[in-house]
Amino acid sequence: MADHLAQSDARPENGVIPALRWEEPPEGPVLVLLDQTRLPHEEAELVCTDVQALVAAIRSLAVRGAPLLGLAGAYGVALAAARGYDVEEAAELLARARPTAVNLEYGVRRAAAAYREAGVEQGPAAALAEARALHAEDAAASTSMAGHGARLLAELVPGGGYRILTHCNTGALVSGGEGTALAVVQAVHRTGELRRLWVDETRPLLQGARLTAYEAARAEMPYTLLADNAAGSLFAAGEVDAVLVGADRIAADGSTANKVGSYPLAVLARHHGIPFVVVAPVTTVDLATPDGASIEVEQRAGSEVTDLAPSPLGAQAYNPAFDVTPPDLITAIVTENGVVSPVTAEALAAVCGA
Amino acid sequence: MADHLAQSDARPENGVIPALRWEEPPEGPVLVLLDQTRLPHEEAELVCTDVQALVAAIRSLAVRGAPLLGLAGAYGVALAAARGYDVEEAAELLARARPTAVNLEYGVRRAAAAYREAGVEQGPAAALAEARALHAEDAAASTSMAGHGARLLAELVPGGGYRILTHCNTGALVSGGEGTALAVVQAVHRTGELRRLWVDETRPLLQGARLTAYEAARAEMPYTLLADNAAGSLFAAGEVDAVLVGADRIAADGSTANKVGSYPLAVLARHHGIPFVVVAPVTTVDLATPDGASIEVEQRAGSEVTDLAPSPLGAQAYNPAFDVTPPDLITAIVTENGVVSPVTAEALAAVCGA
Repeated sequence: MADHLAQSDARPENGVIPALRWEEPPEGPVLVLLDQTRLPHEEAELVCTDVQALVAAIRSLAVRGAPLLGLAGAYGVALAAARGYDVEEAAELLARARPTAVNLEYGVRRAAAAYREAGVEQGPAAALAEARALHAEDAAASTSMAGHGARLLAELVPGGGYRILTHCNTGALVSGGEGTALAVVQAVHRTGELRRLWVDETRPLLQGARLTAYEAARAEMPYTLLADNAAGSLFAAGEVDAVLVGADRIAADGSTANKVGSYPLAVLARHHGIPFVVVAPVTTVDLATPDGASIEVEQRAGSEVTDLAPSPLGAQAYNPAFDVTPPDLITAIVTENGVVSPVTAEALAAVCGA
Repeated sequence: MADHLAQSDARPENGVIPALRWEEPPEGPVLVLLDQTRLPHEEAELVCTDVQALVAAIRSLAVRGAPLLGLAGAYGVALAAARGYDVEEAAELLARARPTAVNLEYGVRRAAAAYREAGVEQGPAAALAEARALHAEDAAASTSMAGHGARLLAELVPGGGYRILTHCNTGALVSGGEGTALAVVQAVHRTGELRRLWVDETRPLLQGARLTAYEAARAEMPYTLLADNAAGSLFAAGEVDAVLVGADRIAADGSTANKVGSYPLAVLARHHGIPFVVVAPVTTVDLATPDGASIEVEQRAGSEVTDLAPSPLGAQAYNPAFDVTPPDLITAIVTENGVVSPVTAEALAAVCGA
């Protein structure tokens, strides 16, 4: 089950609520999530005491974003283990909660493997240690991606003063660190090189307007929101120097599944000769998926489209959560291990250490 | 001033409320508009007794759509004349209400010229007669565009069973007839050749979700709504045979200003080798505007973006109402006088009879 904490309980001393944290109150361990469906107007935390609650939070997008889903999966296994539930069953439930998110499966698998290796008695502690290790690795990966990405931008856009367009949300809310694409933006903002962050609102669920704008405002970035439709006008007016996005799954050939609307940006960027850069940890690369056509794209309820728009009763909607950008439209993939550019299967395998 | 009529007063016998009508109650002539900001859930009519009310209705988009704005402009001049207001002042106010809409200026100019030619005594009747003539011409133009467009589709997409993607709203709500792009869709729907109408919701003001879906539902078309971001996935999946859109102003070189989001569709269509077709009456062509760069694009309040999305307080938004598609991305321009394809300045001038 899951309960919302009162806001006063939730806010830590430094004012920044982590997207996810493990707590051990007297009643037993819990996983506490910042409920991202309520941002930016409410900073409410959701307390999960079992895997069913966590799966529901993943499906409703209370917890979301590729790297963070990996952490949620690993901590979810640790939670099941600590509370004495069937760990294998919990792992299966969690891994299937969202089909496109490869990190989720990765996190689940790592914690479950640690549990199995340690045996029943030491298993719970081993699963938690593995989740914590993944958490630390993820934070370090953010830092490393930010550095590689900032250096890449300096090469791609000589002269600095970057005007960066981004889609969806890829900041501290999706990660144990500062995120993926937004970590790069944060890095160039700190050095005074960010001239403008263009934030796609990202229909249907408005993660850009709600979450990226929230993170950009907190970091005091110069940012401007736009309806996704207006991106074309920005390109045509020469107002975009680079597009930076995250990824939910990268196939072995470099085809990248990311939030729906990423592919149209890649096509626009190509048409205008603007770099289109994917920023993602190597855990997002799925070498077992050969190409874009093999990526399963999650189809979500049409009501996510029709509920916001006052459309006629009974209107049917097409609502894929992701789209797939082929490698030839991607200028570079930035990982914590380095930059893949041009994007080829060989270079991608090499950066993954495969 | 403007008042809303009760719904029971508004509904005519055939159940379809016209987008605009002239009435002459005992209190004096009025222009009655179907308030498009309240559709689809409320069919309320707005009664304008003076030009100020009509200008406000144009700015708020209660009345909208290129051809219909022409009629609103012409009837607005007739209203000012009939009620004894300063016709030249009224004409100037109306013509400036929305800068990108060339039809608005055209309608105003025609009615004002008729008023001037007829002299003060006969002027009001002449202005009204001119507005009514424009209304009839517009209805005839819709029918003609529908025929030309349907024949063009048969050439471009052999085999029929069209899957057409459209953006914004271009049906009976924008015209004295069945509209522009949507009139073509209606024509192929009547002959059983419409397999699917893909309706972009059209952020920020959702004219697709609110108005096109409303018209498609009434006409019992097979239609599916989508967040604008999902159009790329449809192209990539081979689910679109043609894109049909309207226009707000077409420059002499064929550059077309239309609802923001049209240009990204044109780029996607080109990338996928799919026809991108503009449907508009010749009154939308402005031969005095040489090219796309010369088209003034209306910038609207950022609150149209931020009000719907729960973005941080004080968030700034970029909100152009239109974008401009260059002629080389337009497969054809369908007018009531025939089809321009390929789109060249010479062919466009010829179809306009210039």
